Amino acid sequence: VTTSLSALILPDVRELIHRNDPDLLKQAIAELHPADVAEVLVCLDPQEELILFGALAGDAKVETFEHLELDDQQHLLECLSRSEVAHILDRMSSDVRADLFQYLPEQVREELFPLLAQAERNEVRRLLQHEEGTVGSIMSTEYATVGPQMSAAEAIQVLRREAPNRETIYTVYVVDEARRLVGVISLRALMVSSSKNQVGQLMNHEVISLPVDADQEEAAQMVAKYDFLALPIVDKNHRLVGIVTSDDLLDVTTEEATEDIQKGASVMPLKLGYKRAGAGLLYRRRVLWLAVLVLLNLVTSKILAEFQITLQRVISLSFFIPLLTGSGGNTGAQSATLMIRALATGEITSKEWGIILIKELGVGILLGTTLGVLAWGVGVFQSDASVGLVVGISMVVIVFLANLVGMFLPLLLYKAGVDPAVASNPLVSTITDVLGLLIYLGFATLVFLI
Amino acid sequence: VTTSLSALILPDVRELIHRNDPDLLKQAIAELHPADVAEVLVCLDPQEELILFGALAGDAKVETFEHLELDDQQHLLECLSRSEVAHILDRMSSDVRADLFQYLPEQVREELFPLLAQAERNEVRRLLQHEEGTVGSIMSTEYATVGPQMSAAEAIQVLRREAPNRETIYTVYVVDEARRLVGVISLRALMVSSSKNQVGQLMNHEVISLPVDADQEEAAQMVAKYDFLALPIVDKNHRLVGIVTSDDLLDVTTEEATEDIQKGASVMPLKLGYKRAGAGLLYRRRVLWLAVLVLLNLVTSKILAEFQITLQRVISLSFFIPLLTGSGGNTGAQSATLMIRALATGEITSKEWGIILIKELGVGILLGTTLGVLAWGVGVFQSDASVGLVVGISMVVIVFLANLVGMFLPLLLYKAGVDPAVASNPLVSTITDVLGLLIYLGFATLVFLI
Repeated sequence: VTTSLSALILPDVRELIHRNDPDLLKQAIAELHPADVAEVLVCLDPQEELILFGALAGDAKVETFEHLELDDQQHLLECLSRSEVAHILDRMSSDVRADLFQYLPEQVREELFPLLAQAERNEVRRLLQHEEGTVGSIMSTEYATVGPQMSAAEAIQVLRREAPNRETIYTVYVVDEARRLVGVISLRALMVSSSKNQVGQLMNHEVISLPVDADQEEAAQMVAKYDFLALPIVDKNHRLVGIVTSDDLLDVTTEEATEDIQKGASVMPLKLGYKRAGAGLLYRRRVLWLAVLVLLNLVTSKILAEFQITLQRVISLSFFIPLLTGSGGNTGAQSATLMIRALATGEITSKEWGIILIKELGVGILLGTTLGVLAWGVGVFQSDASVGLVVGISMVVIVFLANLVGMFLPLLLYKAGVDPAVASNPLVSTITDVLGLLIYLGFATLVFLI
Repeated sequence: VTTSLSALILPDVRELIHRNDPDLLKQAIAELHPADVAEVLVCLDPQEELILFGALAGDAKVETFEHLELDDQQHLLECLSRSEVAHILDRMSSDVRADLFQYLPEQVREELFPLLAQAERNEVRRLLQHEEGTVGSIMSTEYATVGPQMSAAEAIQVLRREAPNRETIYTVYVVDEARRLVGVISLRALMVSSSKNQVGQLMNHEVISLPVDADQEEAAQMVAKYDFLALPIVDKNHRLVGIVTSDDLLDVTTEEATEDIQKGASVMPLKLGYKRAGAGLLYRRRVLWLAVLVLLNLVTSKILAEFQITLQRVISLSFFIPLLTGSGGNTGAQSATLMIRALATGEITSKEWGIILIKELGVGILLGTTLGVLAWGVGVFQSDASVGLVVGISMVVIVFLANLVGMFLPLLLYKAGVDPAVASNPLVSTITDVLGLLIYLGFATLVFLI
């Protein structure tokens, strides 16, 4: 477990703020990483916050601001002078700035637009057009480009000059006069090459890029596969319009995983962290699916009511209902979870359902037989031989079918263009509950009543 | 959905291989990314594979080999000549090489060691000592260092010279004579600075590093927080021993998320992808928890047997068992999942249980009341007013308590040093089933029998 650096230094920073010695404070925080300063800032009182932020150097102000969460950014903007706000908005990375404008209420946004230069204003408007979840919505427009006719030495000169305003200068894109992406070269290759060589000869012509409306998860998969530092984003005319860097995608991967995990337990994605979510938000994100599942359970109580006579005749049959429905639910949840994750990471596609089916038929028979034997033992132990037999055989069939339900449901949803993660553990369990009760009580009725 | 590049080019590559024109083949594959060549390789017959691999340039051979999965690497090594194997092993990145040796059977490993130079052999042995899951097990030893007395121009010269053999030259570590880590500087800062400035003045003294036995997830969290390209790894004397790069951590993040998702549905981590896992492996990774949960369900059947008289008196009580246990399980799974994820991302720690409890008490009351009203309606509709009242009130209590069980179980496991992910959805559901039956049947007995 990490004790974060910011927690360790918080008391010292606080003491320095109250000592009223601006120079000492400035000196003390000069070498801190902006991410740590941001963590300290949010723990301070509003007045302390302004003193600490004021003690930061100009660049550090911008970088620290960029590391704040969106609501903290908004809050801080409200406390700063117009000139400071203008300075920060002007210097921010284009992608972080666009995120902020996306988050701000319409009214605040309109108040801030006049503080931006025309070029930045247009850029924000352009970036805001991209739908959430696309690479366009997370890309930055501060990429470094060179021309194919430049020499390696000239290209390095360009990069030195542009370095302070570029997201990265380590991956450099080569564009023609129409800004079409024609090549890519690393700063490393430029440095290693003889300085007279032309960029056009050194560059790789096979540039791997993504269109601006591609899914951000696809970008994360590509960067992981190709070990890129950045991925170029192009419009439909193959003109370079932005880059997505690997550190942004690390955040995307973590966020998407959190969403998938939450969906797996039928929690609608919180979007903000658990800690920031209040009880009201948590309730709203959780209650809908729970209520839907209660209504689906009308079916289970209906089935049990239908088989009332069977249950009354052999009351011990009811003892094994949680055992059988539970095992069906657990088995279905397992296979559904494996499918959903393999679909999310791009490992399988719905076309491969044939191979998957053959594998899962085998797994289902093995699991069904094992759990069937155990259930037979439980049935004999808690009741008698005939009930044990009914419980054991039902278990084999329930587990086998539940496994297939868990396998097919995500594939069908995916095929239908619906997020397969809708096949959450609770939904699969409820469906297999229905199936399980029908099999168990149907079979028991055959054995004991007919 | 991405149609991968390798699938598109496979037929063409195959045709080229069979045309028996080595130069044409070489030319055609020269600009392909090694990751794509690797994907094509594994789709070919063994003979085609060797022809394609043979047509790669020396460096491309090594890079393509590095992009293969471990079992494919082993398979390919067996088909290559000793000199080719020696060439590849010599040029591989230290972290990928160590992973391969870790994977190979003892006997194969011993056969390969003589092909390595003494220095590489020692390095492999050293890297193999680090436990799986630590940063030491994924770090690379090909980092770039400079001395604090060098000028910026001298440092850039060193980097140009060393570039071909370094994992990255964009983040440069400054070490003293004892190889202790004293600073960090980016190539960007070196390039932007005046060439005469000393590294010692330009560098950042506050280097953020991790000890060699730190958890790899911690490294991923730090890189995401600080937007690093690489993170330095130090031994207990603060000597630099390796680096972990952000692209390696992107893989770690995805793998860890997959494991967490699988654990959430009580599947033991597969370690290899779903597609590569056979039915036998899938069975073994799934059956243990399912069997344990069947045995835990001995308790539910025991409880139902104890309340036999109540169930016989009012048979309609049994209609609502799946509804109540299901809702308890779903609620518990939700809160457990939220806790486990927040603990995994480092967002909360077990110390904060007080704040979390207060929040979850509120959520539990809201959820319990909502589902209680719904359950009351279901009960009245399917049975009568008195059963409806028992079902409704039981639901309120079950949901409220299940929510707390889901919240506390991961926190307690975490506190006890056990992986909180053990509190999987199925385990939590089984525990809340027991709780739910006791509450429901206990309350019903009070109302209808006493």
